[in-house]
Amino acid sequence: MTPSNESPIGIFDSGIGGLTVVKSVMKSLPDENIIYFGDTARVPYGIKSTDTIRQYALQITDFLLKRNVKIILIACNSVAAAARTDIIKRSKKIAVLDVIDAGTKAAVSQSSNHGNIGVIGTLATIGSGSYEQALRELDNRIQVYSRACPMLVPLAEEGWTDNHIAIEILKLYLADFQNKNLDSMILGCTHYPLFKESIARVLGEELTIIDSADAIAAMARDHLQKQDKLNSRSGGSFDCYVSDKPQRFKMLAERFLGQKISRVEIVNLKG
Amino acid sequence: MTPSNESPIGIFDSGIGGLTVVKSVMKSLPDENIIYFGDTARVPYGIKSTDTIRQYALQITDFLLKRNVKIILIACNSVAAAARTDIIKRSKKIAVLDVIDAGTKAAVSQSSNHGNIGVIGTLATIGSGSYEQALRELDNRIQVYSRACPMLVPLAEEGWTDNHIAIEILKLYLADFQNKNLDSMILGCTHYPLFKESIARVLGEELTIIDSADAIAAMARDHLQKQDKLNSRSGGSFDCYVSDKPQRFKMLAERFLGQKISRVEIVNLKG
Repeated sequence: MTPSNESPIGIFDSGIGGLTVVKSVMKSLPDENIIYFGDTARVPYGIKSTDTIRQYALQITDFLLKRNVKIILIACNSVAAAARTDIIKRSKKIAVLDVIDAGTKAAVSQSSNHGNIGVIGTLATIGSGSYEQALRELDNRIQVYSRACPMLVPLAEEGWTDNHIAIEILKLYLADFQNKNLDSMILGCTHYPLFKESIARVLGEELTIIDSADAIAAMARDHLQKQDKLNSRSGGSFDCYVSDKPQRFKMLAERFLGQKISRVEIVNLKG
Repeated sequence: MTPSNESPIGIFDSGIGGLTVVKSVMKSLPDENIIYFGDTARVPYGIKSTDTIRQYALQITDFLLKRNVKIILIACNSVAAAARTDIIKRSKKIAVLDVIDAGTKAAVSQSSNHGNIGVIGTLATIGSGSYEQALRELDNRIQVYSRACPMLVPLAEEGWTDNHIAIEILKLYLADFQNKNLDSMILGCTHYPLFKESIARVLGEELTIIDSADAIAAMARDHLQKQDKLNSRSGGSFDCYVSDKPQRFKMLAERFLGQKISRVEIVNLKG
């Protein structure tokens, strides 16, 4: 079945972090129907092999394609780095956007001064070098400064995004960026938009912070507009699927999404 | 084959945290041969279902039994809570000790004053109530105060166990314990022995801190002595197996073990 304009936007992540992308899409495209899948039973992907990540990502892709989504947003940096091409191949008829592509393009388009771009992410994302590679492919004169910030995910999940501990940790992680004349700083992890204000406090308000969630939402809006695939009916729906419902799921999900989730369905992809 | 006195002690955990138990056993029983298995490909266990944890734990038990271990130490709180009985059934001929049993018995034997015992652990361990239940079974007059400290595992893996950030986080987590007249505080996670000194700084040196790693090592020594199963040859060996070698493995493993690891073998249990 070919997706129609009323078909949903499919968004997925290894866990619940991708709900920050859902939040940005809801803000940017309030009339669109959205299906989210968070692979909470198998999170974190970052420590898994590329083959395993690919296998999991294609299972989720199939799940979304069966629900007739009109576009897929990869809201997971590990999946974007490991399985982007495979997901595009599998999703022949529809477009596939990902947070790395969206974040790097937004950063380059907004970096006219010195060509210095900072990237922060998880150990896996920074270790993979995928942001650096994507930025260099866009413009090989760009100087990339990157740093893994492994404490930020647990900090976000603890709800400590702007207390004195968050600020002290950010000061430690961001110290090396201070004298780099950065044009922009990419938040290369779906948890990090929760720290946007605290990062601005530490690095200074004049620095452009690239929120990959906002960037991919803007990219999706542009794409659907150009293809004339926006939903013309008003009031979008939101369907949330997870592979396991971890402790504190409700609290965490609402923190990431910025609103209450009325219903969450548990799906076993292996079955 | 029946294990001999020279057969190794088998120790396992969902990840590398159990190396703190290996460290305590090496100190307490320097002549024993040790086999360690860390299920680094499938860590963390805490967010998985009881059935899954049981399945994984029995795979590891079989791996250790094939290597003819003379005793098994469960160095993982999630496994101890979910699969202890199954592992004991599977390991008919040899003894199985676990960190929850060892930690609670050590705490009760050292808590003669007020009968107030504190427990800190991961969300999964504290949420399961297994320490509370084990303590009450030992002495139902005991008052248990528990608190999940989800930031401590990532803090330990970042190597921040005694800097100002660790102290500030411990102050937040441990504030509620301050006026509880605690006899002892159980470190209910294999990562937490790394914070022993910082916790003492925050809660005061007079509080008895029960390190489950030391407790299970002492229990293993007592058991082997009583059964006349100590290794009489001097100089123990150490074999380290993991299911995946994550980034920073070497650095983390040495931090947890307190010494260099000469060789690590990767084993795929599913294959």
